[in-house]
Amino acid sequence: MTKTILGKNDFIENLRGKTATYLLAMSNTDTANIEGITQAGIPGQIYLTPTLDSEFLCTGEVRSLEDIAKTPKGVPTPALITRAVHLLHPFRNIELLDLGIQVKPKLEYFKLHELDIKPSKSIHKGANIEALEIFQKGLAFAQNYELKDDYLILGESVPSGTTTATATALALGYDCKDMFSSSFKEVPNDIRTQTINKALENIDENDDIFTILSKVADNMLIFCAGVILGFNNSQKLILAGGTQMACVLLIVNSILKTMQGTLETSNLALCTTKWVYEDKNSDIKALIEMSELKVNTYYADFDFALSTHPALKLYDNGEAKEGVGAGAALAFGFLNGLEKVQITEKIESFLG
Amino acid sequence: MTKTILGKNDFIENLRGKTATYLLAMSNTDTANIEGITQAGIPGQIYLTPTLDSEFLCTGEVRSLEDIAKTPKGVPTPALITRAVHLLHPFRNIELLDLGIQVKPKLEYFKLHELDIKPSKSIHKGANIEALEIFQKGLAFAQNYELKDDYLILGESVPSGTTTATATALALGYDCKDMFSSSFKEVPNDIRTQTINKALENIDENDDIFTILSKVADNMLIFCAGVILGFNNSQKLILAGGTQMACVLLIVNSILKTMQGTLETSNLALCTTKWVYEDKNSDIKALIEMSELKVNTYYADFDFALSTHPALKLYDNGEAKEGVGAGAALAFGFLNGLEKVQITEKIESFLG
Repeated sequence: MTKTILGKNDFIENLRGKTATYLLAMSNTDTANIEGITQAGIPGQIYLTPTLDSEFLCTGEVRSLEDIAKTPKGVPTPALITRAVHLLHPFRNIELLDLGIQVKPKLEYFKLHELDIKPSKSIHKGANIEALEIFQKGLAFAQNYELKDDYLILGESVPSGTTTATATALALGYDCKDMFSSSFKEVPNDIRTQTINKALENIDENDDIFTILSKVADNMLIFCAGVILGFNNSQKLILAGGTQMACVLLIVNSILKTMQGTLETSNLALCTTKWVYEDKNSDIKALIEMSELKVNTYYADFDFALSTHPALKLYDNGEAKEGVGAGAALAFGFLNGLEKVQITEKIESFLG
Repeated sequence: MTKTILGKNDFIENLRGKTATYLLAMSNTDTANIEGITQAGIPGQIYLTPTLDSEFLCTGEVRSLEDIAKTPKGVPTPALITRAVHLLHPFRNIELLDLGIQVKPKLEYFKLHELDIKPSKSIHKGANIEALEIFQKGLAFAQNYELKDDYLILGESVPSGTTTATATALALGYDCKDMFSSSFKEVPNDIRTQTINKALENIDENDDIFTILSKVADNMLIFCAGVILGFNNSQKLILAGGTQMACVLLIVNSILKTMQGTLETSNLALCTTKWVYEDKNSDIKALIEMSELKVNTYYADFDFALSTHPALKLYDNGEAKEGVGAGAALAFGFLNGLEKVQITEKIESFLG
């Protein structure tokens, strides 16, 4: 089932039985190339993760992996979870956002929204993002977006995205150093902290918000902030992610403050995994409360207690937590009658 | 799951979770009255098969069988498969095409498209079909058709339809004598071959394509060729059948050649059963490749391995293979989360 972190369960209960479009925001930041900063992918080919995630989610096949022998043996991607739910109770539409990925997925029929955005640079040297332009692209995309289903689930695949999210929230002045999640159990604080500190050194105290974002954020964070502000708020939107999506809310909050604007958030929610919710090294609830936005927040009460597969047990041991909208996908499955055991077995079936 | 015969799996994966209208094309040809040519129905009442198939598919009841004692004891109709899927995960709409059936189904509420078409004669004496008129009716029907769902599944119920399909493809000049399926395991080549040869003797070398069709085809083949050419090709259409639907593609191909026309086929697919795909006596893949149309082709990976029911085991032994869109119905079920075991049990429940 789905449990409530903030707000009531009415928002999510009201979605029971309704159809969803799943939208995957994909981007690359060179931050992921810093050795040891993330385990979200294949060493040396981390940039392929969003590409492979989207291929697997849509077709069950991994098509852009040049050397199939290098199939990751470590933590399996949370795309397995999202795909499993999609097989058991499908999203009615899956669409993809290319927010600057190095390799486009090899897919036909699935809508890939091309936005002419380049992968961003590593934040330790300055990400060099056209932040205002990307924000405006997100705003325009959402304003023009025609939702074909009852609600929209917005997931992400951005390797090293928790590092850029942490740097961004800190750079925007939120006091949240120890509130961010990572794909690691033992968070590599040395390399992460070093990278974040270097990134923060690039910030000038006179920088405006978009200048700050251009230096320390990633494309997904900025674009999705635009989506939240541009999306028709008579339609329901679920941010499908953990601390990265919380950072998107903090960006929105900062932009609203700058503009002295407000946002009607009753149709906005965030949904993540139990692994994020229970993570000792981060605090999703505190992060969202730091924004002044009232956002219904949930987690899917799912773990691999019913599995003995060692690769999946890594999740329960804290080695992977969220991504590719796994938490919201699980919630979507639960809202449509799926049981934990079915989902577990379907995920296991991918691993052989 | 659904497996790919031609093309990639993207077309079918993109239909996951979407809604479908199921349209059943029904016709009678007197060819079916030739003794021993088909086992698709009750001896002496073969002409009733489309009527009974449609009644069972829509209502779970067989209403037009005058003598209930004569309930077939042989190979159960594939309508059982399509109905089972419809019970477990329903098509959103079922509609029926009367392309010349002797007995109209006793149904209310279900849309029966009446097209003023008569059953055709036996091809051994000349089918005597107003081929151009029926083709134009198919074209007009598709041009005016308002699809209420995300995609259309077009199935058929035409007893002895594989015989007319074989004769048609050969008469159109395709070198495909041994590529066609039949409802029999031991294909009754004597009577089939004799019938087909007699049909081909009626063809004059100066006959144009519609004259050829008028002699050797059946109403379903001709009408469905019109449907393919008239259907709005921004909408997805699945031909639900085996070698008969492949013959429809060959007719379309021949018409296009005659007219020097082309057809955009990216939203067109064919889906059949594993029994057709694995049939040693036919070659669905080669048939479709013979047309110059690029058509995504799939089969539903379903058999009765999980059943011990002797009537169902006849399928696995090759005694029945396809019909009433069974293959596409199974694919539709898989695309919506159904599992083989559920479908097997539901089909068994019909047999008591």
